[in-house]
Amino acid sequence: MTLPPSPDWIAVDWGTSNLRVWAMGAEGILAEASSEDGMGRLGRADFEPALIRLIEPWLAAAHVPVPVVACGMVGSRQGWHEAPYRCVPCAPLDPAAMVQVPTTDGRIRVSIAPGLKQMKPADVMRGEETQIAGALALWPGFDGILCLPGTHTKWAHVSAGEVVSFQTFMTGELFALLSEQSVLRHGLQGAGWDDAAFDTGLSDALSRPERIAARLFSLRAEGLIAGLAAPQARARLSGLLIGIELAAARPYWLGQPVALIGSEGLSRSYARALAAQGAEARILPGTACTLAGLASLFRQHEMTR
Amino acid sequence: MTLPPSPDWIAVDWGTSNLRVWAMGAEGILAEASSEDGMGRLGRADFEPALIRLIEPWLAAAHVPVPVVACGMVGSRQGWHEAPYRCVPCAPLDPAAMVQVPTTDGRIRVSIAPGLKQMKPADVMRGEETQIAGALALWPGFDGILCLPGTHTKWAHVSAGEVVSFQTFMTGELFALLSEQSVLRHGLQGAGWDDAAFDTGLSDALSRPERIAARLFSLRAEGLIAGLAAPQARARLSGLLIGIELAAARPYWLGQPVALIGSEGLSRSYARALAAQGAEARILPGTACTLAGLASLFRQHEMTR
Repeated sequence: MTLPPSPDWIAVDWGTSNLRVWAMGAEGILAEASSEDGMGRLGRADFEPALIRLIEPWLAAAHVPVPVVACGMVGSRQGWHEAPYRCVPCAPLDPAAMVQVPTTDGRIRVSIAPGLKQMKPADVMRGEETQIAGALALWPGFDGILCLPGTHTKWAHVSAGEVVSFQTFMTGELFALLSEQSVLRHGLQGAGWDDAAFDTGLSDALSRPERIAARLFSLRAEGLIAGLAAPQARARLSGLLIGIELAAARPYWLGQPVALIGSEGLSRSYARALAAQGAEARILPGTACTLAGLASLFRQHEMTR
Repeated sequence: MTLPPSPDWIAVDWGTSNLRVWAMGAEGILAEASSEDGMGRLGRADFEPALIRLIEPWLAAAHVPVPVVACGMVGSRQGWHEAPYRCVPCAPLDPAAMVQVPTTDGRIRVSIAPGLKQMKPADVMRGEETQIAGALALWPGFDGILCLPGTHTKWAHVSAGEVVSFQTFMTGELFALLSEQSVLRHGLQGAGWDDAAFDTGLSDALSRPERIAARLFSLRAEGLIAGLAAPQARARLSGLLIGIELAAARPYWLGQPVALIGSEGLSRSYARALAAQGAEARILPGTACTLAGLASLFRQHEMTR
């Protein structure tokens, strides 16, 4: 039987749907755990118990309160404790702006990273600012565009260590709604993927983005009368949605160094789409960026205590 | 106590979500009823009982089987009995193509109108062909564009009594998904409407349709940090979605006589949007068109028996 880890601190990525925690030591990750106790399903009083359930085994040997550094929707108004947005242009994270959260359990000392807002055009992020800080920690001096594909994909212009501006696209949520809840779901079930169909959707959307609502329905119609199969339909849907996003985000990626931060599969789709437009994109793993961002917060925050 | 009506025939509009029936006599509508027994929630064996539940009171005095003429998703492969699509260009309805449905109950004689398909670009409709036939019955000699706003809005080019071509946009379904299921739902609840916000969304989408996925998220962001209220947000969402549709449907409506067939509220939004682009549109009530289409089927079908 292995001893439970006794972490120096605990990293927490707490989004709308999921809670992920890491026990961190001098050498890096000692242990990790996750649950579906996302912000979206918790009332204010449920956050501390949901966290303790996951990290309890790591607290056994604690003689002093263990620092817990969290980012994501946990800091929203509907979350555990509001961490008010910081306004761009600014560094993605500021240790001095961390919000301390009172806890019942004396074995932890919780702080939450604020998200970022942009006044015009109005935009917000929570969690991605930590990944951006992590990317800058892993890749010091990076100047250019960071794209963070996901439910709400973010494009951020980063320069001199600051987020200059950013823009959010509902691409991932549209894909989920359309493939799981809409009439299209009938023709999208099952496994498989077709790169050529992705490329077709991408090119259709980039050349005539305004046709999106008609092209969406044509996936259904082709399934009914022309035998369009699920792997092709799903890949084309993804291509269409990423295509209209790239059409609108062109000022971000055109002629700029681009790095993608996110899950491997989705980042590869974005990289493929960008490559088709002649733009090279480097892929940075999302979890590594999150942890690097939280670690930089922890280090700086501890230094100033 | 009034006597139950003894109809000459029964008109049925059977869609995915709703079932609507009318007892029809020489003078028109004698009675009507509806339920939520849409095609989407019924197995094959459930259709006849669902229909009988609604029309039972109208069958008491029947000495011969009452003709029941139905249109809509009831004729789809997942419906009561498949009525295979007819291929455009063709008249919207053909009495000779009606599909007879065997019933257990001898008091009714059911037939279903087929939908239309278009091979390239692939497209399908079920139910709207009956409204189009009704519009042509109510407005003989109409040549031009019919727009049928709804869950899946249809634009149809009608000439010399035939549907020449058509195109479907998922606009209504996108509005429902986004306003009820997406992150935007938080900022869209409640009553109220704002025409100016609708116009803003419309004009934004028409001028830069490719920005749609970013503009959608900005509704959320403005709600969070700029106090955007629900009536404005909902009207702007509608304007954005109708705007990208109009951008793509321009070849249909530009310089053409347009008539709208649908519910009053939605048709008025489309008419307002078209007027902003300099296109006048006449509004035809959707239910009247459905009934006129079914009535023309009933008359022609009975004549050929």
